[in-house]
Amino acid sequence: MSWSTSPACTELETHVLDWLVEMLGLPARFLSAGAGGGVIQDTASSAALCALLAARERATGGAATRRGNDPRLTAYASEHAHSSVEKAVRIAGLGSDRLRLVPAGAGHALDAARLGALMAADRQAGLVPFLVVATVGTTASLAVDPVPDIADACAEHGAWLHVDAAMAGTATLCPEHRGLHAGIERADSWCFNPHKWMFTNFDCDCFWVADRAALVRALSILPEYLRNAATESGKVIDYRDWQVPLGRRFRALKLWLVIRRFGVEGLRSRVRRHVQVAAALEGWIAEDPRFEIAAPRRLNLACFRLREGGDPANQALIDAVNATGRAFLTHCRLDGRLTVRLCVGQTRTEERHVREAWELLQREASRLAEKG
Amino acid sequence: MSWSTSPACTELETHVLDWLVEMLGLPARFLSAGAGGGVIQDTASSAALCALLAARERATGGAATRRGNDPRLTAYASEHAHSSVEKAVRIAGLGSDRLRLVPAGAGHALDAARLGALMAADRQAGLVPFLVVATVGTTASLAVDPVPDIADACAEHGAWLHVDAAMAGTATLCPEHRGLHAGIERADSWCFNPHKWMFTNFDCDCFWVADRAALVRALSILPEYLRNAATESGKVIDYRDWQVPLGRRFRALKLWLVIRRFGVEGLRSRVRRHVQVAAALEGWIAEDPRFEIAAPRRLNLACFRLREGGDPANQALIDAVNATGRAFLTHCRLDGRLTVRLCVGQTRTEERHVREAWELLQREASRLAEKG
Repeated sequence: MSWSTSPACTELETHVLDWLVEMLGLPARFLSAGAGGGVIQDTASSAALCALLAARERATGGAATRRGNDPRLTAYASEHAHSSVEKAVRIAGLGSDRLRLVPAGAGHALDAARLGALMAADRQAGLVPFLVVATVGTTASLAVDPVPDIADACAEHGAWLHVDAAMAGTATLCPEHRGLHAGIERADSWCFNPHKWMFTNFDCDCFWVADRAALVRALSILPEYLRNAATESGKVIDYRDWQVPLGRRFRALKLWLVIRRFGVEGLRSRVRRHVQVAAALEGWIAEDPRFEIAAPRRLNLACFRLREGGDPANQALIDAVNATGRAFLTHCRLDGRLTVRLCVGQTRTEERHVREAWELLQREASRLAEKG
Repeated sequence: MSWSTSPACTELETHVLDWLVEMLGLPARFLSAGAGGGVIQDTASSAALCALLAARERATGGAATRRGNDPRLTAYASEHAHSSVEKAVRIAGLGSDRLRLVPAGAGHALDAARLGALMAADRQAGLVPFLVVATVGTTASLAVDPVPDIADACAEHGAWLHVDAAMAGTATLCPEHRGLHAGIERADSWCFNPHKWMFTNFDCDCFWVADRAALVRALSILPEYLRNAATESGKVIDYRDWQVPLGRRFRALKLWLVIRRFGVEGLRSRVRRHVQVAAALEGWIAEDPRFEIAAPRRLNLACFRLREGGDPANQALIDAVNATGRAFLTHCRLDGRLTVRLCVGQTRTEERHVREAWELLQREASRLAEKG
């Protein structure tokens, strides 16, 4: 999809992604007016893959694009990073073995000291650390990796820093949550998913790079039937070179509609309501001695479990709640133990809905205890 | 996206893709009841990438997934294949140099003798031919690669055969166009885009594999938060393992609606009307001595050019027509010469629309000739 296929589609996308830089308080280096810019991907998985491709292009000076992978290339992420990082490493032909999953430290966040030590040891061994994926809000528990320390390690070893803030990123609409941006002025790329918590229909991942040239060099191919005057002028963006597929949908339109409909204050008030409701849920859990909080509640996600009965009891509880058809709970594993996740993020979710889910959980826990 | 995220989304997709096997007269090996199956991708670019990943998995016995590319892996396609093939080879970390673009023979189709010779020479030199992408309907001129001969070469050298029928595939709704399927009973994968010519909104590419196991092995990663009873039963399809992203849209719904709304006969009659209109256009072009047919009209695509004035005259004509805002023409290059493409494929396009476009072309050609 060239700019000339639908100028409006491209122009609105660039415009909305520049708006979001301002709305979320992202660094100015991600603005399209400079060397950077934003693009809408389908999901954070594709954003991770594109970040990897740009990082590889930069690390090999373009050699990988023509001659294939340098087998020394090595990527890093937390053991709690999303599985899409390993998927990207595989797709790109590096192989799962070329991804180091760094053990988490306090609060399930990546241990930056171990990351630095691993990268140094790998370099000593002749490997090339080229990419670190930091997670701001892990899937399991919304743990936040220490981006400033990770940025130090990336700078020391010349690695691309990609930050995946798929769900938590939306919270930075609110100034009081901008602490999540610590260190990102040194990130090479950053993404979040409006389809997760910004009231936008799937699919919609917003992905920014500080240096779009590396991304475009990795993905640009210009056969005759795509040549056109606008492209050759160098004055337009051809988003086909910022993503895996050639064709693309007009996703900026739904994002523009969401922003226009709710307004920045409307978006913020919904985010704040969700965080308040999750905090209320945390309080209710703390009042019920049968349950324990499995990780400190962060933003809109509560992780908890039954104290007694271990994994089987918690699995039975999840199954029982899901079988009612009234709520659908997912799980994760924290510190080796099965954990219930309850995340508040849908456009119309209010306290009463979460209260209802919590009472259902309590009821099913009682019923299971009686059955013994 | 697990099956359990939305059973309906997965089940309808499997169902509709099985329907299409029957509607298009595809080989039974692509049915989900056996070892194969279909999945909806965003575009044919992603289908080509997935075919490559499955081919690599098979060729390396899974070693590439863990340890990275075997640098001997070599892919093949016609010089007229879509640019997405090179893009896939790059993304997968093989590097553009690992793709051989085979020169075209008669009628701009891949020369299978040259393909076989190249593969044999490469094997002799210690390389591993692992993938051939055949195009049934090239972007430039709808040229059809000789799939039966290509299948012979693939069988001889153990390469995966992917067939890209992005636009032309729709024509096989009509029994009289099933000649396009010659040899595909030996293809490992095949795709076409209902969003191109089957009246379905973008994005929607249907991709079938004869052996889904290779594809799933290449792309499956199962972290704790994706584990669930349905997946572990082995009785459901988790389409996340058939594509690059984890999440996915309910694209089967729009395809089901199109099929239900028009019916198979309704789809066929529209395809036949488009082919008739393109044939009529071919006749009008032949009657105007200023123009020549650049490639035999195939299906719904006419390729033609002004006889006099070379590339500059044809570029001026395209620009003049596009500047009117009444039609938008694209071009290609055939036998080194700039060529106008006019393709009839939109749901409501009728003969009068194409007649209007042709008269506009004639008018602008006259105007340019007068200006001299």
